[in-house]
Amino acid sequence: MSGVASPTSPRKRILETARDLFHERGIRAVGVDAIAAAAGSNKMTLYRHFNSKDDLIVACLRSFASDADRIWSEIESANPGDKMAQLRAWVVMAAQCVASDERGCDFANAAVELTESDHPARIVIEEFKAIQRYRLATLCRDAGIAEAELLADTLSLLVEGARASRQSVGPNGPSAGFIRSAEAVIDSFAKANAGGVTVSSM
Amino acid sequence: MSGVASPTSPRKRILETARDLFHERGIRAVGVDAIAAAAGSNKMTLYRHFNSKDDLIVACLRSFASDADRIWSEIESANPGDKMAQLRAWVVMAAQCVASDERGCDFANAAVELTESDHPARIVIEEFKAIQRYRLATLCRDAGIAEAELLADTLSLLVEGARASRQSVGPNGPSAGFIRSAEAVIDSFAKANAGGVTVSSM
Repeated sequence: MSGVASPTSPRKRILETARDLFHERGIRAVGVDAIAAAAGSNKMTLYRHFNSKDDLIVACLRSFASDADRIWSEIESANPGDKMAQLRAWVVMAAQCVASDERGCDFANAAVELTESDHPARIVIEEFKAIQRYRLATLCRDAGIAEAELLADTLSLLVEGARASRQSVGPNGPSAGFIRSAEAVIDSFAKANAGGVTVSSM
Repeated sequence: MSGVASPTSPRKRILETARDLFHERGIRAVGVDAIAAAAGSNKMTLYRHFNSKDDLIVACLRSFASDADRIWSEIESANPGDKMAQLRAWVVMAAQCVASDERGCDFANAAVELTESDHPARIVIEEFKAIQRYRLATLCRDAGIAEAELLADTLSLLVEGARASRQSVGPNGPSAGFIRSAEAVIDSFAKANAGGVTVSSM
């Protein structure tokens, strides 16, 4: 983010500035004038690159989604072939996201603010969350968990909850226990596996 | 909520209307003019009862908090003396909140929208969440769970996550598994108890 001239294109500067401001202050709290000014640009240039504020919101969410793709790639390349290690690395990465960022998930936050069911951002939010859920369930299955979908959904709820809680009550609330909660849950699913029983019948 | 005359006081009508509109559409998306009009009142009357929109937001949150107090009382009176039954009733009640309301927790939503660290709503949000956490941890301890704080925090994260997820991706996302996730977690903590081992060492 910058208010000074930089060699990046106006479109890129506006997009990066909007990402930062929406993330820090919320989507409705930030207007296009403030974004254009903070990007060292103007409203006319902003509207040349993005047809509307909604269009800019969608572009920001797609950009956040590509950050998530990069994190998945890092988890895989740091733990090649070891799916259980990748699952535990996912927990560590999620814990880092929770601890380092008081503002939570940009997609969940956008869903709170953009309540119109036909808002163009909603399909991007749903797609993003569906992809994360699919990747996590696939990882749980590949890690040998019998109840892979339930474990993936449980871990999804824990991380969504940790990011929401961090935002409501700060880092010393329930989110402080995220990593212990998530590891205890993974252990109990893996143990249920080993015992040949399902978690839901424990 | 009503736009027609009713025997309730103007203050109460405005408060109930604001609760409904903030809940449905979000806090920043709804202005005081819209609230006054929907309450069959006017801005001057609204400002006679509430000094500012922020004052009205705080009053709405305190009103939501008293709803939560009532739910706790219902859980206790429906399961007198049986703390484990109360804990399982809490899960059922939380699942009902998740399933019946696409808009999630008003306190978590307010935290997403009101990003200013000195906003007067933030202390109300923090107090509310701290009380819920304390009550849940006390219930887990009274139900005989050794790692009561960790179970309470895990359940808190699950319900926060379920409400956030319900809002982002609807009722068929990970929140659909909330009740199974929460019950599996309670069972594994109770089982760890019985085995004389701590969950974190499982």
